Amino acid sequence: MSDNPSFVLKGILDVEIQQKPVPEIDANEVLVEVKKTGICGTDVHFLVHGRVGDFIVEKPMVLGHESAGVVSKVGPSVTNVKVGDRVAMEPAATCRKCEACKEGRYQICPDIVCAATPPTDGTLARYYRLPSDLAYPLPPNLSLEDGAMMEPLSVAVHAVSSLGALRSNQSVAVFGCGPVGLLCMAVAKALGASRIIAVDIIPDRLEFAKAYAATDTFLPPSMDKGESEVAFSMRNAQAMKEKLGITGHGPRAIDLVLDASGADVAIQTGILIAKSGGTFVQVGIGNSDITIDMFAVLCKELVVRGSFRYGPGDYPLAIALVASGKVDIKSLVSHRFPFTQACEAFEITRNGKSPDGKGVIKVMISGPDVDINEV
Amino acid sequence: MSDNPSFVLKGILDVEIQQKPVPEIDANEVLVEVKKTGICGTDVHFLVHGRVGDFIVEKPMVLGHESAGVVSKVGPSVTNVKVGDRVAMEPAATCRKCEACKEGRYQICPDIVCAATPPTDGTLARYYRLPSDLAYPLPPNLSLEDGAMMEPLSVAVHAVSSLGALRSNQSVAVFGCGPVGLLCMAVAKALGASRIIAVDIIPDRLEFAKAYAATDTFLPPSMDKGESEVAFSMRNAQAMKEKLGITGHGPRAIDLVLDASGADVAIQTGILIAKSGGTFVQVGIGNSDITIDMFAVLCKELVVRGSFRYGPGDYPLAIALVASGKVDIKSLVSHRFPFTQACEAFEITRNGKSPDGKGVIKVMISGPDVDINEV
Amino acid sequence: MSDNPSFVLKGILDVEIQQKPVPEIDANEVLVEVKKTGICGTDVHFLVHGRVGDFIVEKPMVLGHESAGVVSKVGPSVTNVKVGDRVAMEPAATCRKCEACKEGRYQICPDIVCAATPPTDGTLARYYRLPSDLAYPLPPNLSLEDGAMMEPLSVAVHAVSSLGALRSNQSVAVFGCGPVGLLCMAVAKALGASRIIAVDIIPDRLEFAKAYAATDTFLPPSMDKGESEVAFSMRNAQAMKEKLGITGHGPRAIDLVLDASGADVAIQTGILIAKSGGTFVQVGIGNSDITIDMFAVLCKELVVRGSFRYGPGDYPLAIALVASGKVDIKSLVSHRFPFTQACEAFEITRNGKSPDGKGVIKVMISGPDVDINEV
Amino acid sequence: MSDNPSFVLKGILDVEIQQKPVPEIDANEVLVEVKKTGICGTDVHFLVHGRVGDFIVEKPMVLGHESAGVVSKVGPSVTNVKVGDRVAMEPAATCRKCEACKEGRYQICPDIVCAATPPTDGTLARYYRLPSDLAYPLPPNLSLEDGAMMEPLSVAVHAVSSLGALRSNQSVAVFGCGPVGLLCMAVAKALGASRIIAVDIIPDRLEFAKAYAATDTFLPPSMDKGESEVAFSMRNAQAMKEKLGITGHGPRAIDLVLDASGADVAIQTGILIAKSGGTFVQVGIGNSDITIDMFAVLCKELVVRGSFRYGPGDYPLAIALVASGKVDIKSLVSHRFPFTQACEAFEITRNGKSPDGKGVIKVMISGPDVDINEV
Repeated sequence: MSDNPSFVLKGILDVEIQQKPVPEIDANEVLVEVKKTGICGTDVHFLVHGRVGDFIVEKPMVLGHESAGVVSKVGPSVTNVKVGDRVAMEPAATCRKCEACKEGRYQICPDIVCAATPPTDGTLARYYRLPSDLAYPLPPNLSLEDGAMMEPLSVAVHAVSSLGALRSNQSVAVFGCGPVGLLCMAVAKALGASRIIAVDIIPDRLEFAKAYAATDTFLPPSMDKGESEVAFSMRNAQAMKEKLGITGHGPRAIDLVLDASGADVAIQTGILIAKSGGTFVQVGIGNSDITIDMFAVLCKELVVRGSFRYGPGDYPLAIALVASGKVDIKSLVSHRFPFTQACEAFEITRNGKSPDGKGVIKVMISGPDVDINEV
Repeated sequence: MSDNPSFVLKGILDVEIQQKPVPEIDANEVLVEVKKTGICGTDVHFLVHGRVGDFIVEKPMVLGHESAGVVSKVGPSVTNVKVGDRVAMEPAATCRKCEACKEGRYQICPDIVCAATPPTDGTLARYYRLPSDLAYPLPPNLSLEDGAMMEPLSVAVHAVSSLGALRSNQSVAVFGCGPVGLLCMAVAKALGASRIIAVDIIPDRLEFAKAYAATDTFLPPSMDKGESEVAFSMRNAQAMKEKLGITGHGPRAIDLVLDASGADVAIQTGILIAKSGGTFVQVGIGNSDITIDMFAVLCKELVVRGSFRYGPGDYPLAIALVASGKVDIKSLVSHRFPFTQACEAFEITRNGKSPDGKGVIKVMISGPDVDINEV
Repeated sequence: MSDNPSFVLKGILDVEIQQKPVPEIDANEVLVEVKKTGICGTDVHFLVHGRVGDFIVEKPMVLGHESAGVVSKVGPSVTNVKVGDRVAMEPAATCRKCEACKEGRYQICPDIVCAATPPTDGTLARYYRLPSDLAYPLPPNLSLEDGAMMEPLSVAVHAVSSLGALRSNQSVAVFGCGPVGLLCMAVAKALGASRIIAVDIIPDRLEFAKAYAATDTFLPPSMDKGESEVAFSMRNAQAMKEKLGITGHGPRAIDLVLDASGADVAIQTGILIAKSGGTFVQVGIGNSDITIDMFAVLCKELVVRGSFRYGPGDYPLAIALVASGKVDIKSLVSHRFPFTQACEAFEITRNGKSPDGKGVIKVMISGPDVDINEV
Repeated sequence: MSDNPSFVLKGILDVEIQQKPVPEIDANEVLVEVKKTGICGTDVHFLVHGRVGDFIVEKPMVLGHESAGVVSKVGPSVTNVKVGDRVAMEPAATCRKCEACKEGRYQICPDIVCAATPPTDGTLARYYRLPSDLAYPLPPNLSLEDGAMMEPLSVAVHAVSSLGALRSNQSVAVFGCGPVGLLCMAVAKALGASRIIAVDIIPDRLEFAKAYAATDTFLPPSMDKGESEVAFSMRNAQAMKEKLGITGHGPRAIDLVLDASGADVAIQTGILIAKSGGTFVQVGIGNSDITIDMFAVLCKELVVRGSFRYGPGDYPLAIALVASGKVDIKSLVSHRFPFTQACEAFEITRNGKSPDGKGVIKVMISGPDVDINEV
């Protein structure tokens, strides 16, 4: 096999489809024919800025990491899947022998190798190889598109369940109504949250969130001219408390706040509205320098946690939540493109809407020669 | 009894000793004749600024909350102590019926009533009443001064043990070598930390820390003219890593960082040097607005926790650590004053040293008519 | 007020309705006019044996502890409820100052005072007093009978959620299909368990469990003549594994086993079918001496936990689960009696069915002068 | 290399030294020249009974699993150690991809391969191969004998620290004063336990325990003729409580009980003396059928945990505790034999004492051609 068309980022805003060698696999690996790949905000960030934080694209790199496909080859030691199996692909291989891997937190393995994180090639290609235990067979009622969505859903499962430790009947606020924010709401709903507040600055997105999984929404006021971010955050938090009847303690308090926006003001406001003894989870990637009210963190004994990708058990739970009908993901795929139009797919993701004015939630790119209607 | 001289804060930098009524006690309370009271940074902050964060002094208030004394009266339902017992006084009464109290986190009880937190009078008086279970009998080998030190030591126990969850053989960095920082180091040492790094901008304090409990010290470089706090923090963190051989993973990584300084740069630097998967505990009170590297928090899956006073089990562990010889507190009392010279005691605490040039660590004020040499 | 008819246990199988003084209340207490009380297995055990384990009835005691009613009087310090409020009654008052209470485990307070646990009178009376925070206002969509059911539901919430820490998509097995077993299944379902296996020796009860909340049922084989309990348990466990496709690891393994039967064989079998690294929770009261496979506990690193009553947060979660429709409790009330027929109510509970052959699940006794149809 | 003399168990009480092929190593493995091996009770159990529980010796197997040695060969991917390094050998390789391995509990990996657990050969040979991350370099102040002791010490670290979660100032009781029991006491002492009660039926062992790490000892009374184990356990527990002033709650209660004896009566008694809300850890291998007081487990909300071998972080902590001087292990090696006298070494371990009457604690066998005085 030598036919492996791949969508390569060559430089800032410079992409093309290239032929690349088909990967060789080791005894414990599988080769997957990639069928569906969703575009993530970080893919776009690499395209536009050439970097995300300290992760810098220094040589051409295949994009894409939210994928599902069909197993086309298995190494001799593989027992969990076989050729022809439809699988969701967890796109990060870890060393399995460092302290982090052994202690059950492989997401912070220092030797993690993640699809489309420089310098590792991503999954927007015909073939991708991965360790067999990272290929999760899809239950019959999950489509390949659903399978690709397991990546962002696992991000949400990690933030809400594994780190946020959300329990039944708790209240949640989620800042940011992009795919990860929406999926955080969906997971919160699936885990029994009694109240799920969606916050965004775009009314349409709030409307979608409400129909999708939120119980309440909040559209922040406008920032005044000359107002500092800190002052605005305090005003914003106050407005939010008043409008939604949020308290600092008791049944009207917010147990868990998630920021899926990466926006400074969202983070600042989120810290302020979390209850005493509550938890704030940062899942959206944003600036390095965020000003937060550390005095509030101290007095409220807040727990502020960073959430990075996904860890043990997150993919299986993501799959189970969809398979059991507790999480709906189909309604999040707003646009579909064939592999040959991957550039256009990225273009509308950057714009936030397609030329027909339809807002982007999740854009799905089919594998080479895969029909966009074959979901 | 009507003789209850009390050290009253009437306004900013305006204090005097006044006679106040002797408190009446309820069935479950005890009246303690206060023998020794240490001065805390927050006492000085109230004196100088009239407020600490949202806690504002609006009417005259007795200062002091780090105290020990002798039980002089017990309510009819009290069984755990008797008149004449020497006791450490936990100076915060909680409602015992809210969610926080019931779930084992009484320090965030919304109805907490804490000595010398406005509008509640403090312990710098002849008599102070408190619920009997907050009066902890002192083992024979603890002096009354030791008893007064149980308050700041409990702050350290809470931060290092209860929240920081430090385990044997872990590495710790503590920013700030004031009493709470030093006590955090002492607790870390008692719990078996293998490495304890003290950070401060005053060399003498680092020297004391090294002799007291630290295994390593770090004196930050100077901030360059025009250098931003964020840039300086990064340089500071880098210098610290190099000098001390700190890594982000493995046995040379820092498991737990505590900020006991409240200084912006310390907090920023502390976030940067903590290991992937590590914990940062904010115990020092500082500004409301601190700029931290939230991208680092996310990628490292850091846990940032606020530590507020002390909770269940902290006073008992503090007492046990001293009684068993695992923590030395005697060497921290640098100055002693009689009650009538409470103003001078506060004055040298503000100055950081006494007129003879001796640096202040902990200043102890004896109760009315108690000899300063009666420890 | 002096009219307080009460259902008193005078000796083994010797009960009568007596007038007792109306309780006086303290400042923080409320007096509740009891409207509905469910009969618990322990009430019957006291009636028949005069004891449950070390709890021995040594003088006449009012029975009943699963109750709801209407607040008829409040102490001057009470703010959370007012006269006329419909409330579920948590029937165990604790000291609020011991280590257990402060650390968030009030259920093991050594000074706990629990309704109908000797020598404390129970709730089968017109009036019962309790600390105001133990009177939980019922949401509008919960009836007074629902309110009485909050007691056994809280037992299940405690076992499944607080101690069993069940998470979404886990598998559960529950031994015993009496009220507590059924409620454990209901809670497991509400928390998102993917598989809920009901085990009982009575086919009718299994059928009810399946219709109510279980996904699978298991009817144990008969014990052979001369077969030891241990040998039978092994055979039973093997049969259960085969019939239901249970494994020791992976997605077909049982994460959490609850015994709500108290039966020796159930406990032994439950230990054997729990997965490696799983949890076994003992919630059903049974014999003191149970033979378990400790070698299996060791090799599987099983966690075996005793679950006693309910602790912080359990009543609120129980109420929320019913109010949100996640748990159905109405179908569990199988029989209703007026206060004057309390004896008959206990009689059919002992028999396990009423004279018309209808099986007993939960028998509800109305308060004095309360209509049995007023739910 | 073909010279690999190995100590082989051929059948019950049938052992001999045989030449075996030198193991080939994979890219990530190391070959260790074994220098010191301690004899464990399970080795003797296999020798005498041919089985331990479900682990049955069905073909000849090399014994031994408590070893240290010198790296003699490394695979091409190995970076953590080099030829010539002195290493402690963690003798259990796991699959690294099952749920248990990924979630941080590799000790319950269903595919674990452990030295001298049938059918896997053990370490009593000249050479042993293992994954490189299981070869832990010894600090300069640890001898090779110390290195071999890291295996039983890790068992104790796992039971006391990782599972027992012992914290400073807690009270511990350890049943059984063999090597693992003694090491549990040593770990408890190193972690700051305030009270460590040793229980054994042999006075000499209690004396050793007291000198080694225990603060208190208890010699159980004799069982009466015709007395049941259950009745005796209750009497035993009562005697222990009285003699040592043990209570069920508060500062004189036992927070953590460890059974390192495997004896029925010890386990039964241990359950009875643990405090309300306490933890019982089973670390000693004993019978499958143990009768415990499940009513006490329930009412006290005891947590009963099985402890199997060691998991992530246990070997590193074991090494650190010895290197820092917090745990003394040298005094536990009571007897030393050359490889050619391995049979005699097992013989005196079975007998519990050497012909000169000296009691056995730990018997150490040197590797082929290694001097017994080269420690």
